[in-house]
Amino acid sequence: MKIALIGAGNVATHLGKVLKEKGYEVCQVYSRTEQSAAALGTLLDCAYTTSLEDVTAEAELYIVSVKDAVLQDLIPVLVKRNPQALFVHTAGSMPQSVWEGHAVRYGVLYPMQTFSKQRPVDFAEVPFFVEACMADDLHLLKELASTLSPKVYEATSEQRRYLHIAAVFACNFTNHMYAVCAHLLSAQHLPFEAMLPLIDETARKVHHLSPVEAQTGPACRYDVNVIERHLEMLASEPELAAMYEQISKNIHNYTISKNQKP
Amino acid sequence: MKIALIGAGNVATHLGKVLKEKGYEVCQVYSRTEQSAAALGTLLDCAYTTSLEDVTAEAELYIVSVKDAVLQDLIPVLVKRNPQALFVHTAGSMPQSVWEGHAVRYGVLYPMQTFSKQRPVDFAEVPFFVEACMADDLHLLKELASTLSPKVYEATSEQRRYLHIAAVFACNFTNHMYAVCAHLLSAQHLPFEAMLPLIDETARKVHHLSPVEAQTGPACRYDVNVIERHLEMLASEPELAAMYEQISKNIHNYTISKNQKP
Repeated sequence: MKIALIGAGNVATHLGKVLKEKGYEVCQVYSRTEQSAAALGTLLDCAYTTSLEDVTAEAELYIVSVKDAVLQDLIPVLVKRNPQALFVHTAGSMPQSVWEGHAVRYGVLYPMQTFSKQRPVDFAEVPFFVEACMADDLHLLKELASTLSPKVYEATSEQRRYLHIAAVFACNFTNHMYAVCAHLLSAQHLPFEAMLPLIDETARKVHHLSPVEAQTGPACRYDVNVIERHLEMLASEPELAAMYEQISKNIHNYTISKNQKP
Repeated sequence: MKIALIGAGNVATHLGKVLKEKGYEVCQVYSRTEQSAAALGTLLDCAYTTSLEDVTAEAELYIVSVKDAVLQDLIPVLVKRNPQALFVHTAGSMPQSVWEGHAVRYGVLYPMQTFSKQRPVDFAEVPFFVEACMADDLHLLKELASTLSPKVYEATSEQRRYLHIAAVFACNFTNHMYAVCAHLLSAQHLPFEAMLPLIDETARKVHHLSPVEAQTGPACRYDVNVIERHLEMLASEPELAAMYEQISKNIHNYTISKNQKP
């Protein structure tokens, strides 16, 4: 299957690599900037362009991985290049309906994972959520995703919207808690590495316990002495103090709800 | 070495089990409640008491794992049971100096990990931070901790205070992000299990990249469209919306700082 990649960011890069590895023909890459387009084109050994009007008319599948704000403007121009082809985007938060009125065959291929260019991705650990407006194309997308990962699910646009916001909490916000941790330690010249066993165990625990059951620490047991001392330590960084207080209160509320359950 | 455990919570339970496995003699358990004292006493096959006045005078080491608020009241009574013994607490947030004026030989044995009764602990993955007022006792605590874990570090009370608050972010607050994720998914009848690959990869990434380098998602690339849609989705839960907004702003600030570095 001939595939064109629209976008050359983290998702497009990792998808492009794995598609090529699995024997698909990535025939062209589009990106707004010459630098990104050339980098991914070179990596995948294929043609590239920075002009939407020059996107190939030869692909059977166009995979669009661009910022949400860009997607809506790009769609009408892109679809005209090959109106009978299948078009998908990879965005968790965008409904399938963005394609409506422009493409005939369309859908979504959402890989729910955190992609960084500096880090290889094990696609066996990437759940794919697929959606398509036609049964044949849904089947085609499921087949394609199944060659990349054993974890392929159907999800409606509404479900995917919730998967995406949930993923922001579980991944981006979690990672930010690590970032604050690293920031607090570096001010005291303490190594972040010492935290890795704790970070790993925190992730491992929710394979076996629900997150509310797994919770420990001062907020959960509502140890006001500790919470107040911590807020004093954060006094010079009011944003962090406010975040600490808010998350602690929310943890306490969740703990109360859990304990009130029969 | 004969050891008495003061407290019968998660930390005392897991420490008691591993100490016994490693051949130490846990001779008595104290807890305020009969139920907890009996449960841990039975588990460790040793005597137990609910009266501080009846704590054994025979132990060489007393390990105190109780809520911070309880610790200060408990110390004067406990130390009188055996003034020449070594006394340690396991609290990240309490300074060694809580023992001053009461005990002669004292210190801290802080296992930096998240302990839940329902889940076994691999002590090889538990960093221990030790402190003692006398060189001989510091040596003794390091030896003891080294039989439980390969990761034993000295840390002053000041350093431990920062390790503890950093651990609250990296573990308790991180776990709460998982809890919010589970809450959002369950309202849509979506399985939390689908998030585990993402949670695992988020934890794995910071073994290789700094958390700020590892960050992805709408807050980091400041995708206002997505952020606003997410805030609308959370409109019925104002506490969550406020938390989402605050953490997103903070992520954006960290991203800006990173990009401004030469």
